[in-house]
Amino acid sequence: MKKVLLQLDPDGQPSVFDAVTAIDGGAEVILRHSGVAVDDVEGLIFGAIFTRGPEDLHNSAVFIGGSSVVTGEALFEAVKKVFFGPLRVAVMFDANGCNTTAAAAAAKIAQSLDGLSGRKVTVLSGTGPVGLRGAGLLALEGASVCLTSRCADRAADAASKLQERFGVEVEPMTVSTAEETARALKDAEAVLAAGASGVTLLPESLWKGLPGLRVLADVNAVPPLGIEGVKSHWDGREIEGKILFGALGIGGLKMKVHKGVVARLFRSNDAIFDAEEIYAVAKEHLGL
Amino acid sequence: MKKVLLQLDPDGQPSVFDAVTAIDGGAEVILRHSGVAVDDVEGLIFGAIFTRGPEDLHNSAVFIGGSSVVTGEALFEAVKKVFFGPLRVAVMFDANGCNTTAAAAAAKIAQSLDGLSGRKVTVLSGTGPVGLRGAGLLALEGASVCLTSRCADRAADAASKLQERFGVEVEPMTVSTAEETARALKDAEAVLAAGASGVTLLPESLWKGLPGLRVLADVNAVPPLGIEGVKSHWDGREIEGKILFGALGIGGLKMKVHKGVVARLFRSNDAIFDAEEIYAVAKEHLGL
Amino acid sequence: MKKVLLQLDPDGQPSVFDAVTAIDGGAEVILRHSGVAVDDVEGLIFGAIFTRGPEDLHNSAVFIGGSSVVTGEALFEAVKKVFFGPLRVAVMFDANGCNTTAAAAAAKIAQSLDGLSGRKVTVLSGTGPVGLRGAGLLALEGASVCLTSRCADRAADAASKLQERFGVEVEPMTVSTAEETARALKDAEAVLAAGASGVTLLPESLWKGLPGLRVLADVNAVPPLGIEGVKSHWDGREIEGKILFGALGIGGLKMKVHKGVVARLFRSNDAIFDAEEIYAVAKEHLGL
Repeated sequence: MKKVLLQLDPDGQPSVFDAVTAIDGGAEVILRHSGVAVDDVEGLIFGAIFTRGPEDLHNSAVFIGGSSVVTGEALFEAVKKVFFGPLRVAVMFDANGCNTTAAAAAAKIAQSLDGLSGRKVTVLSGTGPVGLRGAGLLALEGASVCLTSRCADRAADAASKLQERFGVEVEPMTVSTAEETARALKDAEAVLAAGASGVTLLPESLWKGLPGLRVLADVNAVPPLGIEGVKSHWDGREIEGKILFGALGIGGLKMKVHKGVVARLFRSNDAIFDAEEIYAVAKEHLGL
Repeated sequence: MKKVLLQLDPDGQPSVFDAVTAIDGGAEVILRHSGVAVDDVEGLIFGAIFTRGPEDLHNSAVFIGGSSVVTGEALFEAVKKVFFGPLRVAVMFDANGCNTTAAAAAAKIAQSLDGLSGRKVTVLSGTGPVGLRGAGLLALEGASVCLTSRCADRAADAASKLQERFGVEVEPMTVSTAEETARALKDAEAVLAAGASGVTLLPESLWKGLPGLRVLADVNAVPPLGIEGVKSHWDGREIEGKILFGALGIGGLKMKVHKGVVARLFRSNDAIFDAEEIYAVAKEHLGL
Repeated sequence: MKKVLLQLDPDGQPSVFDAVTAIDGGAEVILRHSGVAVDDVEGLIFGAIFTRGPEDLHNSAVFIGGSSVVTGEALFEAVKKVFFGPLRVAVMFDANGCNTTAAAAAAKIAQSLDGLSGRKVTVLSGTGPVGLRGAGLLALEGASVCLTSRCADRAADAASKLQERFGVEVEPMTVSTAEETARALKDAEAVLAAGASGVTLLPESLWKGLPGLRVLADVNAVPPLGIEGVKSHWDGREIEGKILFGALGIGGLKMKVHKGVVARLFRSNDAIFDAEEIYAVAKEHLGL
């Protein structure tokens, strides 16, 4: 019985990235759907759960991707609501790569710091999908997380979402100048730059002057990068005693995690792979 | 040479149900097309018949599905018109599962009655796609079929369609009360409830009081079921000497028939699988 | 690692012809995209080049097809612009079969004349995609090409495009009567009829009266054919000392070339298969 992955994508063209990665992760057939709206979900999922017996449903699975995390989350919720009793299949949620990117970045930081418990980690511009998930995963591991935004409301809103979604407390901080950035980084042992493409969040002179800061990770691949002086392909480069990760360096692990999760989708018919479960796979890849 | 199935679906999202079933039936590649209109058919079918030599065309086939039987029938007719000479491929028509469901239900009834010749079978609310096909198949097997509708015009129209499509005579009857239902069931040895989801057509007290009624089959899976007191998973359950089938019970055979027909699509390049041919596969599955 | 072909098609329904041929050419997974616009290209190609390492990218490739050559050419240019450094995949361009048809026709003519250098070949109604490419390929092989059109402006424009695209000089000629056709064929050893479907360009009495004309090829498969008296299935039929090719005769080689090029897409990650490269494959098939 072939491993069938149902790719649900709200975009006009279904993601090629998600399809190739799924194939390389072990999916044998991909049923690709673009322009998927919440109203389409029931019929599509019925087609997944009513075609094979419960004992065979681990050979069918769902991947929810596309470029919009908000729309993807609505599809994800709709998918889970259709399942009942043993009539369910495994699901991976990774719209815009948010979960695999956040999980890979958090795992790189955890590995470099040799554990996160009690350590302060600052997530710069952490109100987007990757920043939020990264902050949540780091906090779940026991880190004391400070999350910044240029806007006080958005920082507070992010902290509130993290409380609700991950049950963690993070410190929201408004940051728009280098001085404020320095304050957010006080006592931090690691920093994750999770801002928009092409915006520098952390000047090189600033991070080089912080002796306690040991790990820097940047998920922005489009120059100028979020952390000045980092190269996107760095994957643990040591500079002045600090360990640095660029977006492509993190991306190598992200790809392995993505493929590893796809492989795991076909081991049971009831697994849900959201941020935490995908992070667990990232840690496993690093031997953590 | 890979077995390629062209899935033509008029719906906005192509059916996942049809795709997974096709894969499990042995199709190696599925070319899925949604939003298919009659005007699209020629170009799509040209792509099927002009790409492989006539001696290899049994490795290409067409499946016409989707939720609308009327639209699917128009595509089916258009597909058959494109073929010429040896340039043709096998085709299966099963929009909304109408043929596989009707075939499975009729075969279950035929098996339970140990032959249909000369026996009366009543098809309740038989004017829809499944009811019409079920009535036609039962009549072709020699049953004396009574087909009911709440509306006299629709019952007469259904009888006329069955004369035209299957060359059979069925007795149309207008039924809206329990008394009229009882009259339609007079002397019937089997009943097939083919009405809309969630409408009870046959009260339990009525069928339990008919000693000559031996087999009851209901294709409605959404409670309340068409036959009161039946459970949808029943697949030949005996109750007071009667044999009962619910929608999921019939559905098990329906799935096997669907997969079996897909497998047969790749045995020749000129087979057409409409109601009769799909019913033949259903009978074969039951050893009839 | 599976061989993945990304099919980019601007039409509403993606070509079945291109998909089946790709499968038969060795593509193991086809990611089909319809309604593709230039703005979609970057995201789709990113998905192709960022999912596998440079050493594995020969397992991913792009096919650009569909019914509009002009739109396809725009997509082709857009695709090539996305590549950078080693992050690229092989690409085949064959919108409306223009390259494989022109290559097969030119190769048949080259083989039949035993070389093209210094020989005159007339391309009748050569301003369309197949005629232009055929004229360019024949001229590149050293033929002296005369290209006709009913409209002087279009003939001149075609000659100018051929200069720009292939760096060759062809002689444009305005032809609307049999007398003008005879003049265009003066001293020609071969003729390629590349006009619209159902338009006769060359009367039988005319070509039979030209002793120097040795090879006639017609790419129009819809009667009446472009060359009167030719049958579309002729694949080198000799009539009165002349060698004749109809559209289906040429089509046999065209299909082999199409499949052969698909197979070659997966040998490197930097090959571009446009008219010249596809013609090279056609010659190889004929042992030229």
